[in-house]
Formats: sequence, C-alpha cells, structure tokens
Amino acid sequence: MIYLDNAATTPPDGEALARAAKEYEECYFNPSARYRGGFAAHTLLEEARREIVSHIADAGKYEAIFTSCGTEADNQAVFGGAGRGNAVTTAGEHAAVYESFLRLRERGTEVRFAPIRGDGSLDAEAFLSLVDEKTSFVSVVHVNNETGAVNDIIALARAVKKKNPRCIFHSDGVQAYGKLPFRLSEGIDLYSVSAHKLGGLKGTGALLRRKGCTLRPYLFGGGQEGGMRSGTENVLGILDFRYAAEGRFASLEEDYGRIKALRTRMKSLLDPARFGIISPEEGSPYLLSVYARGLRGEVLQRVLYDRGLAVGTGSACSSKKPHSRILEAAKVSSEALDGVLRISFSARTDEEEVCAAARLMNEAAEEYANKV
Amino acid sequence: MIYLDNAATTPPDGEALARAAKEYEECYFNPSARYRGGFAAHTLLEEARREIVSHIADAGKYEAIFTSCGTEADNQAVFGGAGRGNAVTTAGEHAAVYESFLRLRERGTEVRFAPIRGDGSLDAEAFLSLVDEKTSFVSVVHVNNETGAVNDIIALARAVKKKNPRCIFHSDGVQAYGKLPFRLSEGIDLYSVSAHKLGGLKGTGALLRRKGCTLRPYLFGGGQEGGMRSGTENVLGILDFRYAAEGRFASLEEDYGRIKALRTRMKSLLDPARFGIISPEEGSPYLLSVYARGLRGEVLQRVLYDRGLAVGTGSACSSKKPHSRILEAAKVSSEALDGVLRISFSARTDEEEVCAAARLMNEAAEEYANKV
Repeated sequence: MIYLDNAATTPPDGEALARAAKEYEECYFNPSARYRGGFAAHTLLEEARREIVSHIADAGKYEAIFTSCGTEADNQAVFGGAGRGNAVTTAGEHAAVYESFLRLRERGTEVRFAPIRGDGSLDAEAFLSLVDEKTSFVSVVHVNNETGAVNDIIALARAVKKKNPRCIFHSDGVQAYGKLPFRLSEGIDLYSVSAHKLGGLKGTGALLRRKGCTLRPYLFGGGQEGGMRSGTENVLGILDFRYAAEGRFASLEEDYGRIKALRTRMKSLLDPARFGIISPEEGSPYLLSVYARGLRGEVLQRVLYDRGLAVGTGSACSSKKPHSRILEAAKVSSEALDGVLRISFSARTDEEEVCAAARLMNEAAEEYANKV
Repeated sequence: MIYLDNAATTPPDGEALARAAKEYEECYFNPSARYRGGFAAHTLLEEARREIVSHIADAGKYEAIFTSCGTEADNQAVFGGAGRGNAVTTAGEHAAVYESFLRLRERGTEVRFAPIRGDGSLDAEAFLSLVDEKTSFVSVVHVNNETGAVNDIIALARAVKKKNPRCIFHSDGVQAYGKLPFRLSEGIDLYSVSAHKLGGLKGTGALLRRKGCTLRPYLFGGGQEGGMRSGTENVLGILDFRYAAEGRFASLEEDYGRIKALRTRMKSLLDPARFGIISPEEGSPYLLSVYARGLRGEVLQRVLYDRGLAVGTGSACSSKKPHSRILEAAKVSSEALDGVLRISFSARTDEEEVCAAARLMNEAAEEYANKV
C-alpha cells in the first residue's frame, strides 16, 4: 500500500509508540496522585509539555494545554477566547473552527468570514478590513488542510495587533506543526496542534498558549492543565506525541526540502490532460490538491485504493457534504470540485512511491475516462 | 508495589492493549476516509461502540458517544442536556459534574444541589423535593467516587420521571461501569463511563445515550460521532477500552463477590484504634474510605507509598483543596477529614495484598502517632 493520505492521518511511528508504551506501563499512575508515582507521571507530562512547545516557540513564553485532538484545541480557543464584540475568521478554516464560529453566532456574537482565493489562501486585505476595535478574537488557519496554501500568520498577527492590540489571535496549525520550518511570534496568542498528523496517536492534541493570554476553560472538573482543561490526562498519547514530534523535528528542514522536490516531481508526472492542479505553487510541500478532469474524485479514489494507493478527497474530517465547503469558497470550478483528489505526503514518503502513485493515477484516470 | 488506588486509575491491561495496538497498526486509517481502509476503521469503532453499550444496556436502545474521558462525558451531558428552567444534582458529585453545574449557574440556569448523608449517599427524599415541572436536567452519581456509596439510580430515575417526564436523567457511572452488576433502565437517559478505571487507557470515555434523548453537541467540527462529538476518533483508545471492558465483564459477578469479601477482610484487619470507616456497609466492594485517627491522610499516604503501598486520599482528580468537598458536604468530622485514605481495589487484587496492606497501614499509623 502506498499511503498518500497523510493529511487525514498518519501510520503510528512504531518507535515512538514503543518508547511511550514502555514508560506508561512503568508509570501508569494518575498524574494528580500525591505520592511519588503520581509526581513521576506529572513530571513526564511537564517534560512533554515543554518539549512540544520548544520545537516552535520559547517554552518560557508559551505553554501547551493538552487536549484530546486538534478539534478540541480549536473549540477551546474559539469558545474560551472569543469575548464581546465580533470575531473574525476565514472561509478557509477547518470545520473545527468554522463550525465553532457558526455556534458563536447562534450565541449572539457577530462573526465575520474573510474570503479566500482560488488556491485556498487568505485574501489578507479583505481579512484585515474586517478587524476593528470591537474584534475580540481572530482565527486564521496556518496551512489550509485542503489545498496546502500557507498563510503568513506572523504578518497577519502583526497587522491585527496593530489595529487592535487586545484582540486574541489564534491559528490552527494542525497541518503545519512538524512540517513547516516556523517559530511562533508573540503576536500569535493561541496555536492548535495535533499528534496523529505527524506519526502520533489519534486522541491527543494541544493548544499552545502565549503566557499572559487570557483564556476561559472549556472542560470543567478536577482542574487539570492548570485549570484550563479538566479530565485525567491521556498520558500514553502525550508521551507518544512527544516522541513522534521529536522524530519529525529532528529532520524537519531536510525533510521539507526533500518532500518539496517530491511534490514538484509528482506534479510533473501527472498527465496534464487528465489532472489539473488546485494547490498553490508555494504551498506546503506535504499537500498537493489536484482534480481529475471530467471525473468524480471519490470514484477514482476507491479505484486507486483497490490498486494499492490511498489518497484523499478534500478533508476526511467533513465527509458528509457533496462538495468541499472550502473549495467552494475558493470558487474552484464545478468540474474541479467534482474531481478533487488530495495527495498528502509524510516525511517518510520516497520517490519510488511518488512515481508509482503518479502512474497509478494516470492509468486509472485514463481507463475511467474511457468508460464514462 | 501493592497498588490500591484503582479508583484514581488502573494499570493498563497488557493483553487488551497488545490486541488493540495490533489492530490499530494494521488499521490506522482515518475512520472518516471514504475508501476500504477508512471503512474498516469505522467498522472497528462501530463494533466497539455496540459492545461497550451491550455490557450494561440493550444496544438497540442505547448508543455510545465516544469522548476523551469521563470528565468530557459529564460536561457533554450537562452542557448538552440542560435546558431552560432549573437543573438538579447532588452534593456528592465528581468535580466534572459539580463544576459544570457551577458554570451552568454562571450562565443563568438555576441549579440545585441535594444534600448527602455521612457515608456519601444521596438523601433521596430531599433530592426529589428539588425536582419540579421546570427541571430540565438532573445528574446523580452512580457510585460516589470518594466513599463508594451506591445510589439507586434506577429508582431515582423512575421517581424523577414520574414528577417530570421531560426531564433528562444523567448519571456519572465512572466508578460503577465494569464493577457493579447493573443494567440501565429506560429512565436513565445518559450515563458516563471511562476506560482507565477498568484497565483501559487514559484519554477514552463515553457518554451512553438512550436513543431518542435529545442532546446538543459540545465539540463542533467535522461531525464525527453522529454529529454529537467532532474530532478524529481515538481509535487505539477505543479498541483498548473495548477489550479491557470485555475482560472485566467476563468475570464481573464473580469478581464482585470476591472483592466484597476482600473489602470485609480489610475492614476487619484495620486496627479500630487507629482507623475509622467512612464508607457505607453496602457500598461498592471496590472502594473503602477510612480515616486515620488524629493523623494527616496525605502524610500517611506518602509514608505508605515509600513502603510499597499506593492508596489514595479522597479523589485524585481534585487535589488542590485541603479537604474533600464531598466529605465536607457529608458532614464528616474534621478529624476524619484530615485523616482520609481511600483504598480502592481492582478485580486483580488478591487476599495476600489486602493482608499486607492492612499490616502496613496499622504499622505506619502506630509509628506516626507516636511521633505526633
């Protein structure tokens, strides 16, 4: 199986999992227990917390609030961060932010959605025009999860803070963390990350918070995570996240260059008579969104899977609607909307897999087109 | 190490974890992915969902909404279930329900707390007098997590529904599921369970919902869990929960009788000059709350841990306050409040451990008393 659906989820990093499982078996105690075993479990969490932050920020200035997934981190940010006045986001957000904004609106907050361009990137000027002195919260996805478009969140945060210094700036970094070379600037108050997009387990995420940024809790109870997120901590998942991230960041820049070259290779190998490109030239190397001309993406996807190639169609996280909300907002043509395939690489993807994948895609598209 | 803090958390069931990890490694796909691998992951979840319900209810009438922990299940129940009017709960609830009710009150819902007795059990009459035609939601813990007192939630649900059939009845069953022989009656609309209290992993819980009970989502996004709980599913944790629960329920009645006898034995071995009993005679066999006369529980706890015995002090989940809120509500004497130790068994606890634990406790209490 050639697995190129890594933006949906990744195979578990076996080494990281074995290491985490061993530690967890020896230290299964409740991190809130007030005896040495409990303190030891607590210490393991604190080490993981610092390390997960330190890859992209100064651990003295940011802290990780562990959550059960990127979606919870986004919900925690939106519902715990948005205050009175209005809240601004983009039409290119993951459902976890987008749907939370719709819910904010139901609760009486004025919400504003900035338009995106055809490649999924944010129209920065239109976005900034929506931010005003009454904006309490903004959220801009770092890497668009359907097209790979990268938003310059450092510049955007700076511009937002210039217009309104009290506004909280959040970014969903689920498709960026462990993939892009990048460090948080102080204008970014909250940043969501997820373990299972980089070889960790499903069920673990974190919201990185700039110390000093005021946030309300979203899950109430025993007061874990400094009172911000109650519930017994997912110790195994957090340890595994730490080790999986450690592996990714160790070779992040090298992988970035290599995968960028593989993405270019993939584009060059796909038959332009069969496939069009949606992703921007300068998008994340890990994601290539294409469309099969005149064909239905989900049919092609299933054919390819049965031939040994797994690719996605838009976001696996919102598979109920016929077309992608984000690509509709990007005003992608209806032919392209029907035919979308999302190819997403991991740091372990190699050239052989890319060449085989392109061949399988060209062949399947040709056969299928002859049948239609 | 003799581990008698199983109400805080349990060592992972190695067999269940190995089985789950093997399945997960082979089927790591995103359960929302629309190709065979994704469907296979989805099917694994559906099987786990049915099995986890079927141990205590008709899987045709109840369904499991997977959450990240018991706390999230409780928050989901309270915030997703409570409507207009008032909401009623007890002074004996776990912080996950209690703190959520305080938050409900901040949001403008009238909340009512029913008193508990000295052993932590609910004063049913006082509780029922608080329920009226404007009550939209009630929550009663099944097994009190600090004393082991068992509330007759079937009778309570029946009485509540008689007074107000539209009211939603929730129970936190975290300390009951996999321990007490019990089946959900139809008066119980929502029931919270947790994996790590029965040999599963931290980071997985579920809210069992009677089909037909109206509940609002609490985490918004891709629409997983039938739209009730968005976020990529914790597949490994859920599979592990399934297998750990399977193990527990296979010998539940036999274990219940055996552990009940061990609890009686423990009580008989503890020196009555050193220890008083808080738990009710007819409480859960898995939990025995005692107090060391004239001593501080947390000091004794640490001494015991260093000698090879892990026991709790009240709830590990709310370790910030000097005294237990629940035991204060139970009007336990201040001497008892200071000296609380919570001894909690697992189905694997044996007589030798119990005898050794009682001996260690008696010895440590005597030595410590001579020093004070």
